[in-house]
Amino acid sequence: MKTVIVTGFGPYLEEAQNPSGAIAQAIHGTEKDGVRIHGLVLPVSAGAVRALLEEEVRRLRPDVLIVTGVTRGRVAVAAERVAVNVMDFPIPDVDGRAFIDEAVIDDGPAAYFSTLPIKAILQAWRDRDIPAYVSNTAGTYLCNQTFYLACHLASSLPMRAGLVHIPLSSAHAAASPTPIPSLALETMYEAVLTAALISANHEGADLKLQAGMTC
Amino acid sequence: MKTVIVTGFGPYLEEAQNPSGAIAQAIHGTEKDGVRIHGLVLPVSAGAVRALLEEEVRRLRPDVLIVTGVTRGRVAVAAERVAVNVMDFPIPDVDGRAFIDEAVIDDGPAAYFSTLPIKAILQAWRDRDIPAYVSNTAGTYLCNQTFYLACHLASSLPMRAGLVHIPLSSAHAAASPTPIPSLALETMYEAVLTAALISANHEGADLKLQAGMTC
Amino acid sequence: MKTVIVTGFGPYLEEAQNPSGAIAQAIHGTEKDGVRIHGLVLPVSAGAVRALLEEEVRRLRPDVLIVTGVTRGRVAVAAERVAVNVMDFPIPDVDGRAFIDEAVIDDGPAAYFSTLPIKAILQAWRDRDIPAYVSNTAGTYLCNQTFYLACHLASSLPMRAGLVHIPLSSAHAAASPTPIPSLALETMYEAVLTAALISANHEGADLKLQAGMTC
Amino acid sequence: MKTVIVTGFGPYLEEAQNPSGAIAQAIHGTEKDGVRIHGLVLPVSAGAVRALLEEEVRRLRPDVLIVTGVTRGRVAVAAERVAVNVMDFPIPDVDGRAFIDEAVIDDGPAAYFSTLPIKAILQAWRDRDIPAYVSNTAGTYLCNQTFYLACHLASSLPMRAGLVHIPLSSAHAAASPTPIPSLALETMYEAVLTAALISANHEGADLKLQAGMTC
Repeated sequence: MKTVIVTGFGPYLEEAQNPSGAIAQAIHGTEKDGVRIHGLVLPVSAGAVRALLEEEVRRLRPDVLIVTGVTRGRVAVAAERVAVNVMDFPIPDVDGRAFIDEAVIDDGPAAYFSTLPIKAILQAWRDRDIPAYVSNTAGTYLCNQTFYLACHLASSLPMRAGLVHIPLSSAHAAASPTPIPSLALETMYEAVLTAALISANHEGADLKLQAGMTC
Repeated sequence: MKTVIVTGFGPYLEEAQNPSGAIAQAIHGTEKDGVRIHGLVLPVSAGAVRALLEEEVRRLRPDVLIVTGVTRGRVAVAAERVAVNVMDFPIPDVDGRAFIDEAVIDDGPAAYFSTLPIKAILQAWRDRDIPAYVSNTAGTYLCNQTFYLACHLASSLPMRAGLVHIPLSSAHAAASPTPIPSLALETMYEAVLTAALISANHEGADLKLQAGMTC
Repeated sequence: MKTVIVTGFGPYLEEAQNPSGAIAQAIHGTEKDGVRIHGLVLPVSAGAVRALLEEEVRRLRPDVLIVTGVTRGRVAVAAERVAVNVMDFPIPDVDGRAFIDEAVIDDGPAAYFSTLPIKAILQAWRDRDIPAYVSNTAGTYLCNQTFYLACHLASSLPMRAGLVHIPLSSAHAAASPTPIPSLALETMYEAVLTAALISANHEGADLKLQAGMTC
Repeated sequence: MKTVIVTGFGPYLEEAQNPSGAIAQAIHGTEKDGVRIHGLVLPVSAGAVRALLEEEVRRLRPDVLIVTGVTRGRVAVAAERVAVNVMDFPIPDVDGRAFIDEAVIDDGPAAYFSTLPIKAILQAWRDRDIPAYVSNTAGTYLCNQTFYLACHLASSLPMRAGLVHIPLSSAHAAASPTPIPSLALETMYEAVLTAALISANHEGADLKLQAGMTC
């Protein structure tokens, strides 16, 4: 039995029920295809995420660590390609802290590539009719920070790490005064579950798959 | 028991299974809240839609006629406000016919307003967590043509008429090489059903509801 | 010598110098190709625009009346096709008044088509390398209201009337904290001038020109 | 006198006159604020750019190397933050070669940060009313490849290196059948010139400037 940790984020701004956190809670305890999934809800707190991630990894020694988060305005699920060593926050976190051009980890490399098989995941998403793509930027906010921390941990462990970005859920988008893209929570749950299973069970090199025009 | 006709469109271009047609088929025969719904799939044929609409209205004498269609690229469901007396096709229909700046009905008025209670529908959509808005253009293609024909029929009958525009379904969007907005087919089905029930049962003037910034 | 009135709007919200008003001022007094252009800056006041338009038309008896206004978020200049008899304001005007689903003119028709030669204007814009299209919605705010009033006046006079919508100017867009589309003020000035000259001098029916996919 | 090399790209696909190449040609020979600028037009050839860049840097020993390129669909000028060690081409280059998930430089680091003072450049652009932002992805095509190569060269030389991305020019956008964002070539020329001068003359650490929400 392989072990996958899936993190999501807790409440933030107007989003009392963050869909990434809701998925992490709902997926917790799932066992499928020889994989056991542990869900973990992280606070949107730049100061707290590192210790929480490290503790959970130490405790569970997972094969895969998948961070998830919401990107308002995107239209599809994304496997992120690269985590960047920068924190440049457009708005403060839940502790009221913002950062401008600071490193996630001092003396860390400029970036880490996701070690999830992102093209194999993309293919699996397409096979399941899930709108998806490979994204080349995870931004410079907490999603990227947590993604970078996960990759940093993974660089010295037998563990894969990566970030799956999801759009707003349709229920959240319905509350927006102007139309904004979304997907059904069910679709995004299936996307995260699929990424977890493929990441745990894909063997060998990633697929060679044309990613499409996304930039 | 009130009667509502819901039309959708059949296959077109790459869309072998048009979601508006799929919804019209699935909703056919539904009875709820004192309303019986008849679904009708129209061909994407500018020359055929008028006779088919007129025949079905003559046969069923409905209280409400709701046309539905897909608008690729939109992010939410829309109650259209106004049908315009123009056909200006970006691409040919299934018969290979295109039109540039021709009238839907010669000597018809420049436009008809939807006689569905579009703001009451918008409120009901929001209450059900469906991403939605009021749109001020139905384009100049077959959706608008059919919408205009429906309103023209309704202008001399005790019948409400309007157009509900839906985005791509997530399953269709998943096949796009570049990310494109979508909603779950289930969400759009519920949106069309809700519009049908509200249109049949709403009494008196439409709600006075701020529509939001959509242009 | 033919006479064209070009209106633009005055300051509004953060836009102390509205580009449509700036163009109306700059173009005032221009004489070219047998056309004399009068610029007029209108306040963003739903209660004031009708009397101001009527007075200027009575005074100058123009051959053409072109209303211009800004649509934040658009990427190109647009010749609007249709003015709708509705006022549904997303935000109040300079007098603090908002309207929900009220008529511009009670008992007026649902819509007027622009009587500018919009396809000939589109062709002339393309010939001059100006990014442009034919738009099928002028929204439901003051631009549409003024456009409808202009068409209503034109319906009983030997005068053409229409609306040219412009994006933000690049200078205004530069002040936005998030990237937003724009064009150079010079490009938009040339677009308005071109529309004025073509509208005054184009004879016979409008061109039959494919408008492209814009909805 | 400081020396800055500004590269742009040559013809590609429908773009017989690539605006980045046009700017590189036009800016060649400019001397201003103690800076001499050399323009260089690179072919859109993955196999050719490395040797051409290296040769020009060896010949001129510049203080700054700025790569420029076009990103179709963007709305503003961007200072790119990070170059990634990956080539994942959506379409082949002029030699007909495409790449899927290959390294720009084998054994190179995952990414390099731009060593241009990107926030100081952003501030200077805003001061000059140029719509602009800091972008966190340069894509995975030739722009990113050349940017990565420039940063790789700069890592062992007393030279700053970075990428300025520009949108389509308005003249190019005017030829698009559907509306697409653009800026005036003059605006983009001024943006590149400003980036060159600031990069050569800015001393000390970069500004601490909020970048805005761009992801």
